[in-house]
Amino acid sequence: MPTAAKIELLDALSGTGVRRIEAVSFVHPKAIPQMADADQVWAQVRKSPAVRYSALVPNSRGAQRALAAGFTEVEVVVSASDTHNKRNVNRSTGESLDDIAALIDELHGAGASAEVIIATSFGCPFEGDVDPKRVADIVDRVVADGADRIAFGDTTGMATPRRVTEVVTLVRERQPDIPVLLHFHNTRGTALANILTAMDLGITEFDASVGGLGGCPYAPGATGNVATEEVVHMLADMGIDTGIDLDALIEAAALAQRVVGRELPSGVLRAGPRTRLAS
Amino acid sequence: MPTAAKIELLDALSGTGVRRIEAVSFVHPKAIPQMADADQVWAQVRKSPAVRYSALVPNSRGAQRALAAGFTEVEVVVSASDTHNKRNVNRSTGESLDDIAALIDELHGAGASAEVIIATSFGCPFEGDVDPKRVADIVDRVVADGADRIAFGDTTGMATPRRVTEVVTLVRERQPDIPVLLHFHNTRGTALANILTAMDLGITEFDASVGGLGGCPYAPGATGNVATEEVVHMLADMGIDTGIDLDALIEAAALAQRVVGRELPSGVLRAGPRTRLAS
Repeated sequence: MPTAAKIELLDALSGTGVRRIEAVSFVHPKAIPQMADADQVWAQVRKSPAVRYSALVPNSRGAQRALAAGFTEVEVVVSASDTHNKRNVNRSTGESLDDIAALIDELHGAGASAEVIIATSFGCPFEGDVDPKRVADIVDRVVADGADRIAFGDTTGMATPRRVTEVVTLVRERQPDIPVLLHFHNTRGTALANILTAMDLGITEFDASVGGLGGCPYAPGATGNVATEEVVHMLADMGIDTGIDLDALIEAAALAQRVVGRELPSGVLRAGPRTRLAS
Repeated sequence: MPTAAKIELLDALSGTGVRRIEAVSFVHPKAIPQMADADQVWAQVRKSPAVRYSALVPNSRGAQRALAAGFTEVEVVVSASDTHNKRNVNRSTGESLDDIAALIDELHGAGASAEVIIATSFGCPFEGDVDPKRVADIVDRVVADGADRIAFGDTTGMATPRRVTEVVTLVRERQPDIPVLLHFHNTRGTALANILTAMDLGITEFDASVGGLGGCPYAPGATGNVATEEVVHMLADMGIDTGIDLDALIEAAALAQRVVGRELPSGVLRAGPRTRLAS
């Protein structure tokens, strides 16, 4: 995606009423060349005062770039599965957790908050099921190390309502005070069912990507996050006010689809909202 | 789809553990030429004693064909929305309900049961929202006329958990004894969330189509039913024993995809079950 298109898309999104955007990732340009332009993107984005922007970083070098760019909300990732973590960053989960403890200190020292994303929280494509106790142990560790928020990543779309209930319930029992958000991919169609389940458990923050953009270079068969407009569309009809303008969001998804030049996995983008009448 | 492929697919499905299959539709060959071979298909299908087979019919002529072919479970359709019903069969909902009353008598007289499918139960692409009271009124009418079962069709994927709750709750209040099943299309991603909601309300029967095959010639933008394997996959991980062999079902979906020669809208077909490990 050209740099100008990323900026146009971020500006479109910030006008939809979303209150938080993961704007850029400060990963090494050789690891993910598509994200080498993070600094240029961020410098040119129109910063909306209504939006909290965050940056994803893989390590201290990335954190320093994020801080230098002015981010005060930073996200770091660790996989609950050792195999996935090794394929992702060539380190064990335990080694990454040590790194993250130091990163949290570094971010806090600079006045930024640290969200820890626990990838493969609901299953690993290499190891299979992931024991919720392992996920909860990681939560205990990163909370003790000062994490401000935890996101549970369903990296390859292995979450189901049962897995969501198990992880959320156990984590809530052990760490009732840490803010929790959930991050579903819709690989096997369960994303909205998972969100519904999580809402019944009291979760109110979810990651999603406009048009269902995305994927994971290290996870075979992975699709993007659940499409933001599919989430907002369902919630709107349930009478839940997300503050997001669905029509504007669908326009942003259409822009994303034009930019990537392939059909994005979003039924609401394809068919329009349920209230759009046929002639 | 060639006749032989239909037979092969039905035979594959009857070996998966599904207990009910809508096998053919006896519609007029000029209306839907793709289904003109219903008699040949049914004559050659291997009839599994473990499966209840049904046929969809639009009118008395179709009912006579179904009865002559030996079907003892027959489905008829009416749209809750007048506009959709008129586009579908060029009659008002009220006129179709009169026809259905006569059809039910005809079927019962021949020893067959009659399921009434109420299309656009959760919304109409031409009229928009459909009042649940209108749906419940139709249920009252067809129950009084002797319907054995009611299916609520989400013809163009307009159902959400809220709409499901409203329709099911009202119908259950008014007609607690009539068997109810739900029929979702996944046009806007909500199908599994809708099924989860319906299960919480006590519904245990759902229509689905292998691979998400299908659509609706009269409903613009309509996609097929929710893919059977996506439903079974979610339920299996929730510990619900459907009696269906997921691997055999995915093989049947792959067969369907080969036959139609285009990618079917099924994440579980594309990515495999969550337990399938990557190398």
